[in-house]
Amino acid sequence: MKQVLRVAVVGGDAAGMSAASKAKRTAPEAEITVFEQGEIVSYAACGLPYLISGIVPDVHDLIARTPEEFARQGITVRLRTEVIEIEPRLHRILVQNPDGQTERIAYDKLILATGAGPAPLSIPGTQLPGVFALRTIPDAQSIQNHISQRKPRNAVIVGGGYIGLEMAETFHHLRMNVTVIQRSSRLMSRTFDPEMSQLIREHLESRGVTVLTDTEVRLFEGTDQLKTVITADGQALPTEIAIVGVGARPNVELAKNAGIEIGPTGAIKVDNALRTSATDVYAAGDCTETRHLVSNQLVYIPLGTTANKQGRFAGENAAGGHAIFRGVVGTAVCKIIELTAARTGLTEDEALRLGFAAESSQIEAAAWAHYYGDPPNIHVRLTYDARTRKLLGAQLIGSEQAAKRVDVVAAALHASMTVDEFAEIDMSYAPPYAPVWDPLLIAANVARGK
Amino acid sequence: MKQVLRVAVVGGDAAGMSAASKAKRTAPEAEITVFEQGEIVSYAACGLPYLISGIVPDVHDLIARTPEEFARQGITVRLRTEVIEIEPRLHRILVQNPDGQTERIAYDKLILATGAGPAPLSIPGTQLPGVFALRTIPDAQSIQNHISQRKPRNAVIVGGGYIGLEMAETFHHLRMNVTVIQRSSRLMSRTFDPEMSQLIREHLESRGVTVLTDTEVRLFEGTDQLKTVITADGQALPTEIAIVGVGARPNVELAKNAGIEIGPTGAIKVDNALRTSATDVYAAGDCTETRHLVSNQLVYIPLGTTANKQGRFAGENAAGGHAIFRGVVGTAVCKIIELTAARTGLTEDEALRLGFAAESSQIEAAAWAHYYGDPPNIHVRLTYDARTRKLLGAQLIGSEQAAKRVDVVAAALHASMTVDEFAEIDMSYAPPYAPVWDPLLIAANVARGK
Repeated sequence: MKQVLRVAVVGGDAAGMSAASKAKRTAPEAEITVFEQGEIVSYAACGLPYLISGIVPDVHDLIARTPEEFARQGITVRLRTEVIEIEPRLHRILVQNPDGQTERIAYDKLILATGAGPAPLSIPGTQLPGVFALRTIPDAQSIQNHISQRKPRNAVIVGGGYIGLEMAETFHHLRMNVTVIQRSSRLMSRTFDPEMSQLIREHLESRGVTVLTDTEVRLFEGTDQLKTVITADGQALPTEIAIVGVGARPNVELAKNAGIEIGPTGAIKVDNALRTSATDVYAAGDCTETRHLVSNQLVYIPLGTTANKQGRFAGENAAGGHAIFRGVVGTAVCKIIELTAARTGLTEDEALRLGFAAESSQIEAAAWAHYYGDPPNIHVRLTYDARTRKLLGAQLIGSEQAAKRVDVVAAALHASMTVDEFAEIDMSYAPPYAPVWDPLLIAANVARGK
Repeated sequence: MKQVLRVAVVGGDAAGMSAASKAKRTAPEAEITVFEQGEIVSYAACGLPYLISGIVPDVHDLIARTPEEFARQGITVRLRTEVIEIEPRLHRILVQNPDGQTERIAYDKLILATGAGPAPLSIPGTQLPGVFALRTIPDAQSIQNHISQRKPRNAVIVGGGYIGLEMAETFHHLRMNVTVIQRSSRLMSRTFDPEMSQLIREHLESRGVTVLTDTEVRLFEGTDQLKTVITADGQALPTEIAIVGVGARPNVELAKNAGIEIGPTGAIKVDNALRTSATDVYAAGDCTETRHLVSNQLVYIPLGTTANKQGRFAGENAAGGHAIFRGVVGTAVCKIIELTAARTGLTEDEALRLGFAAESSQIEAAAWAHYYGDPPNIHVRLTYDARTRKLLGAQLIGSEQAAKRVDVVAAALHASMTVDEFAEIDMSYAPPYAPVWDPLLIAANVARGK
């Protein structure tokens, strides 16, 4: 008698539900069970800032599919069910059901999609009402409740990365006075070079957002509620709401306790088939590290796109497939009020630290033909290795037309193109969409001339 | 004594002026002379439809630089000066000056940028006032004069390619009743597959444009002016203005008469350094053929982007450089009223004819996250070889967000990626700019599943 394949998935967000869906499509007869400790599966975490700003009117808009919809696909979702132990050699997990009872469940293949939590900020007062992280729908709902009850006029954002600046936009949209506090000397310091960080800062300041760099928060002050944010240099900022967005930390305890190997970045180590060090155990999404295809280093870059791809591929492989996930090039884009900031590959800073002979060409050009209406501008910075001529990365900042142009560079990075080969790419042109020399090509021509 | 390098350029449009500028930058001491038979150099031909529609208010907006500006760069532009003969072995040209006098001029390097003219339509009545081609500024000005004098209410476009459909948009914008007449069974038949042609047709018809396919024009009728367009199947269309846009034909007479080799496409043959068969004679732009990097065939695809690139590279090489232009992948984009139609590589039709095992995956998806405002849709058709898995081309039709996404595929085609490698590309994602699976990736995933 043929055994039915049993696939267990730990975590019901992007990676977990992608894995479950693809496993079911790959092996329709398989028994797929997703264990989710929360109340909701399959939601768009990246939409949370827009839920708070009201651009997304209803939390249900962010939920791609309900457990009932997954059930119709033949996938069992067990909500409020926490996996508390993995026994990889015995191919079983220990779960705690909503009623508090524990249960051992056998699997043939296990997929870990435990995600990430907010990196903690070790200062007093983070537990005060009014101080929030933003990772989950309950987080967003707490922020919404706080806003509707306290009607804050002053907001502080701790951390000038993606979440911080998206929340700066949200609070600006809600007409609060916004202050962004960044420990390092500039915004987006890990993902953009100084010249580009400066453009982001100028945009925020031009819209009335206060940016404090080289500044640390020492204390969130208040009795029953947040009242003041105190900085290390002694500033006291009256504040009714604060968001802490100082990075993500992979949820690896479950894997670690099971003896599954954790990589040098602190996230779960996987091979290019998304297999962990334990037989028949896969991992995908924000709990894993991956390879950067430009630097060839292992990196921890938790993003929804990667979580979806890894989830899909892990699900395919758990169900008997042979999908390969080679890695990422670190592509990301962020809307900051009216500015679009996109990037891929390595920054010049990062590339120099890694030993590349990194140089950059930076230009500003119109997003489309200068005579067609009034085109906005895009700043393009292309980074390449002056020895090998290999393209290393790109940063595009300006109008919304920057957002998808970065993918042209991402494709070139996947293909290990030189900047000179990049300059030859036959790009689309019509006056409403591009100048005859696309801004990307103008930057490549400057690099070619060097 | 060191001789000064003398570079002569025939033709002062995109390719010619790019060549002249780059030659001057490469060899600043060189003596660069451009011979232009018309009155204007360096203008944006692709902007002409928008000049006629009034979106571009003034013809001067389309002129990138004047002869005086080139003179300040050290480039001599001789207007109303026709090159009537080339003597490659003697390294000299015969020119006719504005006063009618001829003159022999010696060169060290010659760059041919003679461009293209409209392919003729061999039917009676094409010389009637009211019947126009559109290639040059004088053409556009004649159309403008005709419109302001006759205030046409009915327009006929002969030819359903790029120029035809851009002019359909222009006349629709000017509130005329527009009829597009296409000889073959569908619009854009050489650049899009039938499924995509149909989307273009539906859009035009939804905006009130009449589309007649499988229809030939037999006669332009009228006494002193165009009054009626008569089709081969006997329809009589009252019309006060008609545009004939049935293709471009390279201007090769000068080269041919000089014994310079013409390629299989009927355009001037050049190698990948833009050299013609004659020593020290280069050619660039709409008068040349080039290699299609997907099919490896010689093709004639006259576009402004290619003209600019070839001109630049020819200028660099004429001045002693070593620039290589390997070819094109046939990328183009066109705005058709509110529709964006972009394409790159081979269509499935074309690929099958060339012997590829072509298959396509076609999807329709939102341009950005479904919960962020009200995203428009994009149709994506990816064509690939089912045997080698190599990506062969893409067609994107829908909102303006299609325009630059096609360049991601163009980059992948330059890199000879498989459709499976394409599915792995780390593309940018944020709710205002893309769904977590970009439409390109959705199409690639469908292909991957086949």
